[in-house]
Amino acid sequence: MLYLGLPLTRISRLTCTHSLRFSSSVATKIPHFPCVEVHAARESRIRETTLHASSIPESTEPGAGPEPPYARPNPKSYKMYHDPSPLQLTYSSDPLPSFEVAYETWGTLSPTKDNVILLHTGLSASSHAASTPSNPTEGWWEKFIGPGKALDTSQFYVVCCNVLGGCYGSTGPSSTNDLTGRRYATNFPIISIFDMVRAQFRMLDYLGVDKLYASVGSSMGAMQSLAAGWLFPDRVGKIVSISGTARSSPSAIAMRFAQRSVLMADPNWNNGFYYDGLPPHTGMKLARQIATITYRSGPEWDLRFGRSFRPLPEAEPNAPHPPALCPDFLIETYLDHQGEQFCLKYDANSLIYISKAMDMFDMTHSVLKSLNLHPSTTSVPSPSSTPPSPPHKTSHSKSHPPPSNPPAYLPQLAEGMKPLVNIPTLVLGVQSDILFGVEQQREVADALRMAGNENVSYYELGGVWGHDTFLLDVLNVGGAIRGFLS
Amino acid sequence: MLYLGLPLTRISRLTCTHSLRFSSSVATKIPHFPCVEVHAARESRIRETTLHASSIPESTEPGAGPEPPYARPNPKSYKMYHDPSPLQLTYSSDPLPSFEVAYETWGTLSPTKDNVILLHTGLSASSHAASTPSNPTEGWWEKFIGPGKALDTSQFYVVCCNVLGGCYGSTGPSSTNDLTGRRYATNFPIISIFDMVRAQFRMLDYLGVDKLYASVGSSMGAMQSLAAGWLFPDRVGKIVSISGTARSSPSAIAMRFAQRSVLMADPNWNNGFYYDGLPPHTGMKLARQIATITYRSGPEWDLRFGRSFRPLPEAEPNAPHPPALCPDFLIETYLDHQGEQFCLKYDANSLIYISKAMDMFDMTHSVLKSLNLHPSTTSVPSPSSTPPSPPHKTSHSKSHPPPSNPPAYLPQLAEGMKPLVNIPTLVLGVQSDILFGVEQQREVADALRMAGNENVSYYELGGVWGHDTFLLDVLNVGGAIRGFLS
Repeated sequence: MLYLGLPLTRISRLTCTHSLRFSSSVATKIPHFPCVEVHAARESRIRETTLHASSIPESTEPGAGPEPPYARPNPKSYKMYHDPSPLQLTYSSDPLPSFEVAYETWGTLSPTKDNVILLHTGLSASSHAASTPSNPTEGWWEKFIGPGKALDTSQFYVVCCNVLGGCYGSTGPSSTNDLTGRRYATNFPIISIFDMVRAQFRMLDYLGVDKLYASVGSSMGAMQSLAAGWLFPDRVGKIVSISGTARSSPSAIAMRFAQRSVLMADPNWNNGFYYDGLPPHTGMKLARQIATITYRSGPEWDLRFGRSFRPLPEAEPNAPHPPALCPDFLIETYLDHQGEQFCLKYDANSLIYISKAMDMFDMTHSVLKSLNLHPSTTSVPSPSSTPPSPPHKTSHSKSHPPPSNPPAYLPQLAEGMKPLVNIPTLVLGVQSDILFGVEQQREVADALRMAGNENVSYYELGGVWGHDTFLLDVLNVGGAIRGFLS
Repeated sequence: MLYLGLPLTRISRLTCTHSLRFSSSVATKIPHFPCVEVHAARESRIRETTLHASSIPESTEPGAGPEPPYARPNPKSYKMYHDPSPLQLTYSSDPLPSFEVAYETWGTLSPTKDNVILLHTGLSASSHAASTPSNPTEGWWEKFIGPGKALDTSQFYVVCCNVLGGCYGSTGPSSTNDLTGRRYATNFPIISIFDMVRAQFRMLDYLGVDKLYASVGSSMGAMQSLAAGWLFPDRVGKIVSISGTARSSPSAIAMRFAQRSVLMADPNWNNGFYYDGLPPHTGMKLARQIATITYRSGPEWDLRFGRSFRPLPEAEPNAPHPPALCPDFLIETYLDHQGEQFCLKYDANSLIYISKAMDMFDMTHSVLKSLNLHPSTTSVPSPSSTPPSPPHKTSHSKSHPPPSNPPAYLPQLAEGMKPLVNIPTLVLGVQSDILFGVEQQREVADALRMAGNENVSYYELGGVWGHDTFLLDVLNVGGAIRGFLS
């Protein structure tokens, strides 16, 4: 076999062609790579701390910008809904025999139970969207939930669940399989966004909530929000879809595929059966680095880091700064830090299963039909077998004309989204988002309007925070939600 | 230590909470993951074929779109320039004691040697830009080089080198270190784009070429093209900079950092000392998958793959297609294939060193000054110690007004690029390029104009091919080059 044009067996027998010699100090030294050694060091710490039951000290944040707080889950702080009945699944003939949903609530349920907002999470968030008396840790949407805030708890009863497939209390690959007494691991069935929503509505049944005031979500939460309105058109009063999509794009699939690939290539992943051993922490770190690139934007990094280097060691602040193969630039130490922070906080299999569910999400009529999915309703016209009329004949409002050059699949998407025709919907996107691009936000709004929905509010935000804008821009994102819900 | 809120030691002692049981067929089966098993299989093939000296069969292309042909290097087909004298390096006090440059040529050198075009390569390309009598394999810029083509060989003598740091003949980390008789590996010094260019000009000295008709390059080749004009202002007649930059952006650094990270985390990488063993083929595949995402664009994938699934096995074309955790969508099999194709064709250390050189490239005045870099010239005014006047006082031509809101660093970049003031320059960018964004192309043109260069031609191309447009769009890229050079 040829490798770089040389037979591999001959590689070590090459003769010298240079006539000069290096100094011995250069030639004999074997370099160190702290950014690589950190993986083995982390593994040693995991082994040690498993024995000594202490915790890993967290490193400090290298940048100065805002970060979404991902709260560590506190098992005592969330409520559990246990459902002993089977849950039908989109992609499996066997149902999930039973399931659990972890959830938290804020505000007060009205006597008629008509003030419920179901808040859906993104990929890796827990039910801890905001602090509670039993868990005062800051939640991932802390500034958006509370009296007078975007989700006004003086008016609404907000419920947030950990999604099916997750690892923060709800049933997922890290849950125990009754039959074996061991974790499901990759014997967990592939799940869909619709499955997640069905599990949540079983919990709403248990809570006695017949109809939601609103279904609200960002990123994958927006997919769930749309899916909730689709599955239960009579039970959803309003929909908020922020930085989501009705049809995952190839470029978003590509970025999630890259994450799954590095994760599954980690030898610790072990085909998903790592729960009795060491978790694939290196793969998780690498995957999170890639994910972080998709969550932010180049313009933010230009402003926040530019081409600045990492701080020099305090002992030698004025020493020369020769480049290294490990992180040099602040943007590199930032990504390294994001990966390091995350790699033991989330279950690798949950990341794989949930990111796959996002990839598969597609509200195109033919896809929904092939999956044999049906809305639970009698009042809304079920999708017809023919696509709707061309855009110029539909019910677009005068302030929002139909797109002048719609893509070929838009009518099929509009047909698929017809069950949402009567639900007022807020669609909000961010121009700097490279994961759920602004074209996808326009697509959701256009498809809803083409389907005949006359109550679609559509906003685009500027700014440099990319996809993570929904976690950070309280003024604009929060303001739009508050206005829409009031 | 807590992992997912549970002490690691207790993970396997969890009790069941479910009341129903899975069927035994689901519960006891351990799933297979062909996309993971392929890494071990590849490693077995490498071991086997090393013993049996056969070659690895290549898989077939899953998509139908155009792919740049990366020719396998043929040692007999390129010429070698051996230089026994030391080469000064940007980031090292020790020079490289000697070096070699592999190069190929097309066309006929004129008697006065005034018709030379030096063509610079991108990161991973060899000197084989086009087919030659000694190597009829298609080159990476085959359609751009030849009689009547963009680089017209009936008029010009085209020279293309493998870059310093590469693995296709020129001195790099996989070259043998005279002192040890072993490969340099990561004892190879960190090199800069300027170092690559200096090595090439030593080769031009040897060829007796005093002045280039033009210095031409795309991607990293564009960096070299600008660096050539900067280092040797009197020896470069024209500059072509396609989809390049004068100052690598944080987002491009982020994408290259992600590639280096997955590569260096491969246990086979072994701190760079893998030449006597197995190469980090898995890390290389994962890195190439990430790289491929940056080379193309979402709009291309929308058109080329959309949300289509991989073809079903021929034996069961009509079988149901349940989703899997391994690649399902064509975009996934495409990326998988790109990684698989590349992972044994290029040296991992070359990828690390050269991508690092790209990250470090910055023509800002203060950066060049701190590196003690100086142009080799007497005729061009050396950079002054003060930045140039604000843009409205500089020599912008009337057809190209200065940018209305230039970033703060632009005057410093213009000051750094002052040695290029007298060299006519073509700057060409692509609006769908996510790696070297069109803003960076405007930046190069703006900085050159602000520096006083009155001969800057600037084009932006549409289309969906992203960064790889320079390899594919013969009509528009080739046409602009041909017009500029004639």
